[in-house]
Amino acid sequence: MKLATLRAEARPGSSTVAVRIDGDAAVEIDGFTDVGALLATEGWRDTAAAASGASHALADIEPQRWAPVVPKPGKIVCVGLNYGTHITEMGRELPVHPTLFAKFPEALIGPFDDVEMPAISNEVDWEAELAVIIGAPARRVTEGEATAHIAGYAVLNDVTMRDYQYRTLQWLQGKTFENTTPFGPYLVTTDEWQLGPDMRCIVDGDTVQDTTTADLVFTPEKLVSYISDIVTLNAGDVIATGTTGGVGHARKPARYLKDGSILETEIDGLGAQRNLAKSV
Amino acid sequence: MKLATLRAEARPGSSTVAVRIDGDAAVEIDGFTDVGALLATEGWRDTAAAASGASHALADIEPQRWAPVVPKPGKIVCVGLNYGTHITEMGRELPVHPTLFAKFPEALIGPFDDVEMPAISNEVDWEAELAVIIGAPARRVTEGEATAHIAGYAVLNDVTMRDYQYRTLQWLQGKTFENTTPFGPYLVTTDEWQLGPDMRCIVDGDTVQDTTTADLVFTPEKLVSYISDIVTLNAGDVIATGTTGGVGHARKPARYLKDGSILETEIDGLGAQRNLAKSV
Repeated sequence: MKLATLRAEARPGSSTVAVRIDGDAAVEIDGFTDVGALLATEGWRDTAAAASGASHALADIEPQRWAPVVPKPGKIVCVGLNYGTHITEMGRELPVHPTLFAKFPEALIGPFDDVEMPAISNEVDWEAELAVIIGAPARRVTEGEATAHIAGYAVLNDVTMRDYQYRTLQWLQGKTFENTTPFGPYLVTTDEWQLGPDMRCIVDGDTVQDTTTADLVFTPEKLVSYISDIVTLNAGDVIATGTTGGVGHARKPARYLKDGSILETEIDGLGAQRNLAKSV
Repeated sequence: MKLATLRAEARPGSSTVAVRIDGDAAVEIDGFTDVGALLATEGWRDTAAAASGASHALADIEPQRWAPVVPKPGKIVCVGLNYGTHITEMGRELPVHPTLFAKFPEALIGPFDDVEMPAISNEVDWEAELAVIIGAPARRVTEGEATAHIAGYAVLNDVTMRDYQYRTLQWLQGKTFENTTPFGPYLVTTDEWQLGPDMRCIVDGDTVQDTTTADLVFTPEKLVSYISDIVTLNAGDVIATGTTGGVGHARKPARYLKDGSILETEIDGLGAQRNLAKSV
């Protein structure tokens, strides 16, 4: 099943509704303003599967009507250094523990919204990532139990201001600029998508990142288990599982997004984002 | 004006109400479940000042009826390395930029609740801190404008699992263990409290931290301005402004909280917390 959050109008801030995507149509799930609100209710899979609200042809939906899949997650936990091939090609050893940092919900934008390029950063970089979305509260769950607590998966680009990321030892400030992190277009439930398909990031037509998601060191289940030992993961919470090689900051010479750049991020089976980088 | 969030019953999870503290009584602010909900409304200062709901003698209020001042902030931004004397005594130079990291709301507890000591950490440490609570949305505000966006101040102890904090380069996982961060007992509005009074942390009767809050390198106004260039600070958001010397991890030998420890944290004019460290 594919779930998404649609705006009533093609602009951020517009009211939203949760939808189920059936082939070439989006069917409204009455009573739920967004996928986060849906996931917070017990039996959401049945509710979503049974929904029969107003139907909209996908072809008729303007791009900016797609909101972030979960517009306001309670928590966004991001993972660093999680693609094995990339870590070993950098000459590092595989990590024993996942590196975790946060992003605040204000960073999220829809999958076709503009990435806001702030005047104060000159190093806006891309990080294609697989996002895990929690479907039921998880506290001290094992890796084996974790699957039942995952609602599904979506595409996310952890757009990062490198100059701010490295101003101090803690990355948060480079990771949480407002309106910079595309998330969506939709969530695919765990019964229909599993780790393995390819993920790509394309900047102005150049494929800059290309990996199999099977290369993750800490799988979604491992991450849910690990984080749930620390803090409860609630329905709608998001784990951004990290990126692979090919980011702009590591290129020689370094390459960053600029005003007018087109950022495309896609994972086979999870759909594709297309965002214009726009100075504000 | 002093504002707090009181639970109906002396246990976490109980329903809550916002109150104004008048001398030795707490007066309910009808219609607001907590201080966060109050701050999210325009004219909250007038609303709170005019409230005349049910009154409760402070002496009759059981300690665990005090909830975290703002129980579920949208964001908690924490600051590292922010006390000048402590930084210079460690042989470091004063930082040019604030070090920022996050804490998730699930970490918060009331000012007299138990600090949950998880079995998986052996290094639970204290960090007395001044918390700044936002009173109106702040986006790209100057230092001069920042004051008007601050609701007030409160006591917070950024209790930290040092083993988890240093498992990787990013501190988040050591900073956000569930039910570990006492916050309160009350917020004092900006017209009644200014930077300068002393802050202390006392563990099992020993004063382990003692500083003037005037020693902050990045003042509340500087922090609000800096963060607001990155992301909007919303009403009820919290900035934990960092701690000073005297933490257990830096002692020789190191000293940590243990099951049964009593943790007291106080700032003159902002009240005092008293928490039992309890294994779970």
